[in-house]
Amino acid sequence: MKLVEMTVSQFADVMASDAPAPGGGSASALNGAIGAGLAAMVCALTVGKKKYVEFEGLAKETEEKALALKDKFVTIIDTDTEAFNAVSAVFTMPKDTDEEKAARKAAMLEALKGCTVSPYQMMELAAEALELVSALVGKSNATAASDLGCAALNLKSAIQGAWLNVCININGMADQAFADEYRAKGQALLDKALPMADAAYAAILEQCNS
Amino acid sequence: MKLVEMTVSQFADVMASDAPAPGGGSASALNGAIGAGLAAMVCALTVGKKKYVEFEGLAKETEEKALALKDKFVTIIDTDTEAFNAVSAVFTMPKDTDEEKAARKAAMLEALKGCTVSPYQMMELAAEALELVSALVGKSNATAASDLGCAALNLKSAIQGAWLNVCININGMADQAFADEYRAKGQALLDKALPMADAAYAAILEQCNS
Repeated sequence: MKLVEMTVSQFADVMASDAPAPGGGSASALNGAIGAGLAAMVCALTVGKKKYVEFEGLAKETEEKALALKDKFVTIIDTDTEAFNAVSAVFTMPKDTDEEKAARKAAMLEALKGCTVSPYQMMELAAEALELVSALVGKSNATAASDLGCAALNLKSAIQGAWLNVCININGMADQAFADEYRAKGQALLDKALPMADAAYAAILEQCNS
Repeated sequence: MKLVEMTVSQFADVMASDAPAPGGGSASALNGAIGAGLAAMVCALTVGKKKYVEFEGLAKETEEKALALKDKFVTIIDTDTEAFNAVSAVFTMPKDTDEEKAARKAAMLEALKGCTVSPYQMMELAAEALELVSALVGKSNATAASDLGCAALNLKSAIQGAWLNVCININGMADQAFADEYRAKGQALLDKALPMADAAYAAILEQCNS
């Protein structure tokens, strides 16, 4: 059964179970889906409102982009766990002969690369979604300010959670060039996205208090 | 239909729709459920492992507490949206006579208090769950370190998201004493919980890199 076809309640249960997957990777993808979804909702609550007519164009355009990002994140909820399961599958490979050992090692490297690319993709999507959220601050329905703030928080959690997954999988990886590449690319995304998330949250908290 | 009985995919869709609820409140409760769930999973992956026998007692005890918190958060996913719907319902009340206006005003105050208590309860639960996560850092299965980090991130997002909901609902509230009480109590929880979340994340990121 696909994870996204489970009920929310079942998904929380399987997350809490002793099965190592789904774990933090799929949880981060869910955060991304909810964050992008909330951004889309804030746009939907802005479109068609007289008070926000000057932001109508921005809201419509952003809603479409946020919905597309939401859909991509929903897909990754399952594909990230599949990438993890590929690592687990390597542990069942035979390791008696030198050839088997070499095949196992190569398969593990490929599987770990899959578990790096998947969260890295989440980081890219989350950074993109955070740009959308930033642009909406002060330019969307103020009654939904807390929702926009929760969008920023979920996307920050998504990118940081995905980063932990990148780090744990490239750590000690046999292909050092691959590891270095993803470490540098991931860090660059973080450097750009985290200040955006924090600034959006701070501005929205002020808005909720004034 | 209860929100937690929707599929994960449907839940993300309804979050992204133009319906104002579910919104950031239920999203924060989901963050809490996934955060507490991940903490329980890390405990489950620690129990019964020879390498971690010295943490067996802590893991067992913490797993039970984390599962209970997960269940409470799952319940709040729906009750928070119900509290929000009570506010929407007030807008349908008549406001022609002075009596009707007074009744409407009183009902709005009560509804806004409901929308303050609900996220405040989430903040309490998230702070409790973050204490559990903090205690597990370095004392649980290291292969699940990224999952524990994602637990910390989700719980931080839950407490900060809930706080935005507390703030937006007490802002300008007619009952100033109630507003002051919840602002002070909420701030105290944040002051305690956020440094715990940040310290846990920083320690785990280091662990994932070494």
